[in-house]
Amino acid sequence: KQPKGEQPPPPVVHYHMNNVTTSNDPIQNRETVLILTPLSRFYPQYFENLLSLTYPHELISVGFIIPKDAVGNQATRELQEQIAKTQSGTEKKRFASITILRQDFDPPLQTQAEAERHRLEKQKIRRAAMAKARNSLLFTTLGPTTSWVLWLDSDIIETPPTLIQDLAMHDKPIIVPNCFQRFFDREKNAWDVRPYDYNSWIDSETAQELASAMQPDDILLEGYSEMATYRSLMAFMYDDDRNDVHKEVPLDGVGGTALLVKADVHRDGAMFPPFAFYHLIETEGFAKMASRLGWQSWGLPNYFVSCAGMTII
Amino acid sequence: KQPKGEQPPPPVVHYHMNNVTTSNDPIQNRETVLILTPLSRFYPQYFENLLSLTYPHELISVGFIIPKDAVGNQATRELQEQIAKTQSGTEKKRFASITILRQDFDPPLQTQAEAERHRLEKQKIRRAAMAKARNSLLFTTLGPTTSWVLWLDSDIIETPPTLIQDLAMHDKPIIVPNCFQRFFDREKNAWDVRPYDYNSWIDSETAQELASAMQPDDILLEGYSEMATYRSLMAFMYDDDRNDVHKEVPLDGVGGTALLVKADVHRDGAMFPPFAFYHLIETEGFAKMASRLGWQSWGLPNYFVSCAGMTII
Ligand SMILES: Nc1nc2c(ncn2[C@@H]2O[C@H](COP(=O)(O)OP(=O)(O)O)[C@@H](O)[C@H]2O)c(=O)[nH]1
Ligand SMILES: Nc1nc2c(ncn2[C@@H]2O[C@H](COP(=O)(O)OP(=O)(O)O)[C@@H](O)[C@H]2O)c(=O)[nH]1
Ligand SMILES: [Mn+2]
Ligand SMILES: [Mn+2]
Repeated sequence: KQPKGEQPPPPVVHYHMNNVTTSNDPIQNRETVLILTPLSRFYPQYFENLLSLTYPHELISVGFIIPKDAVGNQATRELQEQIAKTQSGTEKKRFASITILRQDFDPPLQTQAEAERHRLEKQKIRRAAMAKARNSLLFTTLGPTTSWVLWLDSDIIETPPTLIQDLAMHDKPIIVPNCFQRFFDREKNAWDVRPYDYNSWIDSETAQELASAMQPDDILLEGYSEMATYRSLMAFMYDDDRNDVHKEVPLDGVGGTALLVKADVHRDGAMFPPFAFYHLIETEGFAKMASRLGWQSWGLPNYFVSCAGMTII
Repeated sequence: KQPKGEQPPPPVVHYHMNNVTTSNDPIQNRETVLILTPLSRFYPQYFENLLSLTYPHELISVGFIIPKDAVGNQATRELQEQIAKTQSGTEKKRFASITILRQDFDPPLQTQAEAERHRLEKQKIRRAAMAKARNSLLFTTLGPTTSWVLWLDSDIIETPPTLIQDLAMHDKPIIVPNCFQRFFDREKNAWDVRPYDYNSWIDSETAQELASAMQPDDILLEGYSEMATYRSLMAFMYDDDRNDVHKEVPLDGVGGTALLVKADVHRDGAMFPPFAFYHLIETEGFAKMASRLGWQSWGLPNYFVSCAGMTII
């Protein structure tokens, strides 16, 4: 019994980290998942897809980081409207907790009008800003009981509802599905998908040689003709029939559009380098850093998720 | 009003990161401090010193990470006994919250019996294990409202009670006092102190040249005669009179015995590399990583803290 006017003792919490498992049957083992989304634009289909995930929502916490500008304010309003509905709606749909961080640093220049020769330099600045946003979100939301972290970009509008289970059953430290983009094909007069994520790759000797000739702060970027890396891109490794959705390939670089990571990989220190790390940055640098810590990345070339199509050709 | 049998909606928390300030007057601005201690052995004087810090305890959270071995079990018991007393005692002494993590990885070999020629390799393994312990602790306890992180080793047995305010008033991203070790001087028949922390230094050309000739995974270590770096060690930069306790020197490497860091430095991604990073590791690698992120480290050569003296000579 507390003497009058006294507060109860503040919390003392004791965690045994070896009880926080990551297994190929995470639901059975009640493993918690932290879904992290850097968000600059709100897509209603992103949220619908999030809600339709069949992993038990009471085991899922969600974290967002949103730039502090007009576009970010709008995205925050739209997001909060959906969250308010979800979190006060059907219990089964509710997530364990939701955190929204408003970024305190300036997002990089948005204008696309600069001369072509600045493309690479601008890309580096953009990726560095994204890396810092991911790190801020990660460092402030990861807890002692988190088993898995699912990175999910805000333009991912469709995944199988069993995404988390499907990725986790591989029991890999880092695993990434193949992200395709929707587009409207005018010739066929129909929607189609095309490879989108060029950040998931197997390294090449050419890329290694390019890197070794670079200045310390230079970075290798995929998808620029003036810098042909001859890396093997997972985007093009799918089989036409896609019968074996669980085909695995080891990767040296990963994209962050949808990326499942064992929380221990992050807890060991693997983050998203906002600077040139072995001439790599952001999610590609993350894969390299994880590999320096002894964790291998894997990809599922036949397992597709889709991101919003911004363009119609 | 909730329908019968329904749970209240789970938490949705919204943080504006720019409201989390770090200023030279942190008490006035009610800035929260997270004290992080990797702990393998419990010193009662460490805890007494912690309790005697005059920074408002309700603004302080404390986190420990302790190895999961027999020695760690003993340290945990001793720590918990002290915590139980504090957190149920005088309200003014209580901390906002306390987290204890038990490490889920094997601590490195403790035996000191190996041959002399293995010293450097063993030191690298030990520092890498320490780095991972620090990262685990950091990634799981840093929150969205933390302003400052104070790293404090468990063998720090005496600091000025105003340590946090004294360091914070410099308003630096990273700042480190000068850590001295107590020892009993048999000749003078009295206790004395001697320089202890060789990880806080200003880089030298010699060290740069040594590094550039190294293999990628090799690391530079301070205090080994076979690897004379000619770095300027803060340990020896104190003035004899120590009149100006607030004298600042810019540093390239820092030790972690007592180290105040603005939480934003960590949130940007600065962690303790458990691998060779520019041929540096752990706290020294942290200073380098922070500098790659644009954050400068500083030292206070005349501001002393003391760590436990293990040897009597
Ligand atoms: N917090 C934050 N999120 C951003 C920023 N820029 C983009 N994003 C989000 O980061 C993810 C990747 O951005 P996107 O523009 O789709 O990059 P791309 O797929 O690599 O072309 C998406 O979820 C965006 O909503 C930013 O400056 N701050
Ligand atoms: N969690 C954890 N803490 C450790 C381990 N080894 C040492 N420590 C703690 O880490 C800090 C630095 O260790 P110490 O032996 O004093 O290193 P030194 O001062 O560099 O010689 C102290 O607070 C130790 O209690 C370990 O394996 N795990
Ligand atoms: Mn995208
Ligand atoms: Mn020590």
